[in-house]
Order: sequence, then structure tokens, then C-alpha cells
Amino acid sequence: MSKKISESAVRRLSLYLRTLEELDRAGHETVSSGQLASRSATTAAQVRKDLSLFGSFGKRGFGYGVEELSRALRDILGLTHPWRVALIGAGRIGSALFEYEGFAHRGFQIVAVLDCDPSKIGREWGDSVILDVAELERVVSDRDIQIAILAVPVEAVQEVMDQASRAGVRGVLNFAPMRLKVPEGVTVKDVNLVIELESLTFALSQGI
Amino acid sequence: MSKKISESAVRRLSLYLRTLEELDRAGHETVSSGQLASRSATTAAQVRKDLSLFGSFGKRGFGYGVEELSRALRDILGLTHPWRVALIGAGRIGSALFEYEGFAHRGFQIVAVLDCDPSKIGREWGDSVILDVAELERVVSDRDIQIAILAVPVEAVQEVMDQASRAGVRGVLNFAPMRLKVPEGVTVKDVNLVIELESLTFALSQGI
Repeated sequence: MSKKISESAVRRLSLYLRTLEELDRAGHETVSSGQLASRSATTAAQVRKDLSLFGSFGKRGFGYGVEELSRALRDILGLTHPWRVALIGAGRIGSALFEYEGFAHRGFQIVAVLDCDPSKIGREWGDSVILDVAELERVVSDRDIQIAILAVPVEAVQEVMDQASRAGVRGVLNFAPMRLKVPEGVTVKDVNLVIELESLTFALSQGI
Repeated sequence: MSKKISESAVRRLSLYLRTLEELDRAGHETVSSGQLASRSATTAAQVRKDLSLFGSFGKRGFGYGVEELSRALRDILGLTHPWRVALIGAGRIGSALFEYEGFAHRGFQIVAVLDCDPSKIGREWGDSVILDVAELERVVSDRDIQIAILAVPVEAVQEVMDQASRAGVRGVLNFAPMRLKVPEGVTVKDVNLVIELESLTFALSQGI
């Protein structure tokens, strides 16, 4: 696929999928673009436009088949197989992420937890034993890991990022408040809680 | 200010501020747009363009004064006074957020923690006693709260959002995976960890 899809369109696809799954659980077989829109704070026209980027779904007057569209969206979003994830950083954020049930529900399996702190290495978290981040390359290769979640301090994060990409990780979710330098072929998404709050206070201060 | 500033420009301002603060701690008095750019994974031209939206900073050939530009950015981002925050939801994500030191460092003070679970209400977290979310309106008013962090399940979040906006909260950071309906004058930022991961797997699957 060579079309350029905007970040916000991809996020809306995730929201549509969530809505479809709820409708499926509630026993619905079809859904209109209007229903999908209202749950995702967008318009029916936007729903139709987003979906048309990926093919022809639904029938005029009948709406979309809930199961069919769910399957298509899971395919588009790369959710048809589980993803094997390394969690790097066993601090507070790391611990909350480890326990976060949303990941496993969506097929993100945390198959390794790593840290550099000798007082943490060897501890057990659930079925995981915290490993030394120095072993990252071996762990990524042995456990067939594709994604790393970086929950490490800002001073360490670029080095960990470099280790992860050398180890063959292709996708990174970064919680440190720093934009990372990444080699081609590796994709990074930043989650920065302070920056989210600051973009909120910016809006509040400017009276937007 | 009526100019429309993009979300991504605001995020870059946060990153510039972070870099400036580090330079300040390291004793630097001036910084070039190139130095600011390299730390924020952008270009010197972008730095100059972003800053020019808000005024005239720096001098050609001398760069920017670290202290002066920090002060200006804090002002633009609404960080010259502390913000009083209610944390709603005392589950795992709530707990990690409560302990997250980054917030306090940036002037975000969690002055109330609320939940609806009787087994949590009354428990102590640090200096805070977990309050009943039914008391939200009174708490927001008594404690002069401007911002709410919603770390509640998706089934409850729209109702809590409605309560928060009725109570006078103006800014909301939402961790539930749902786009909220909000009245005019209230700003919401979403942090959705699964959606971040899905936008990562979308990129990985499409070979972007």
C-alpha cells in the first residue's frame, strides 16, 4: 500500500473497530456510517471517506456488516496475529503498562520485561522474570519480539532505542519525553503525558 | 490569540522548552536554532518558523537566550502558574499517574483523587484520601480545580466527563479509549495506549 494515510485517519479506524466489537457483542449484525460516526465524534461522511481508502465496504441503504467490517479493519490495522512485545523499564510507568489489560485483549503480548537496575533484575512480575537490558539482542531474537515499549528515563532512552533497533525491533512505543533518532525501517510512536498536559494548558491559556 | 497553531507545533514547543531547561541546568546561556532542532528531531528552519508564530526571539548570529526563551515558552504554554488537577479513577492507570513525578515537576498538582468504588473510597494515597466521585462538583469548586485526568473504564467515561464539565473543569486528559462529547469551552486530549500501539502495527503491517 503506497497511499499516504493520515495519523488521524488511522486513529479513527481504531475507534470504529472498537465500536464494531461492542455492537458485535450486543448481537448487532449491521451498522450505519451514522452510528459509527456518533461513537467516534466524527461525521458519517468522514466514516465513509476513511473506509473508502481501503476498499468498498457496505451497501447503500443497508449499512456495513459488523463482522465483515471488523475483520477488514483488523486486517488493515495489522491485528490478525498477536504481536510479541518487550517492555523495557520496570519502574512505575512500566509496572502500570505491564498490568494494563487492554494490551493483551488486543493481541499485544508482553513476552519480556527488561531493566538495567541490578535491584530489579531477577525479580518476578507475574510469569515474567525481569531480565538485564544488556541481554536485549539475545532476548529479542530468542523470543521473536517485534515491538518494544520504552518506559525508561530520558537520559537512557536514546541508547536503549539504539540497542532495540540493532536487536531487530521494528516498532517502538516511547514514553520518555524525547524525540528519538531512529534508523530507516523502524517506526516510533511517542506517548508523552506531560506534553499532552501542556498542549491542554496551551489551549486553556489561549482561550481556544 | 486567534492564530490557528497546529497540535504538532505546540508539541514541538514543549520539546524546545525541555531542551532549554536542560541547557540552563548545564550552564548554557545561548542556544542556536540548530541545537534546538537536533534535540527535537526537526530542522533549524522549523524551529525558527515555530517560534516566529509567537514573536521575535533571538538575534541572527547569536542565537536565542536560554533563559529568555524558556520564560517565553512557559508563558505561551500556560506554565507560569501551577494547575490544580483532579485524578478521577484510582485503578492501575490512575495509580501510575498519581505517582508520576513528571506532573509535579511541570506544575501539575493532583489535589484530589476520586473513584466510585466503595472499596477504594476513603483509602489514603500519599497525602490524599480517595473521595467519592459523586462529590466531584463540590470538590472541583472547593479546591479550585481546572483540569481533570480521567482514568476510568470506557463504560463510565462519558458520564464522568459530563459531571466534570458541569462541575466547571475546563481541560480534560482522557485515558479511556473513547472519543468524548464535550460542551464548548472544554478542551479534551486523549491518551489511548492501545490506539498508539495500533497506529504502530498499522505502520508495520503496511511496511511504511
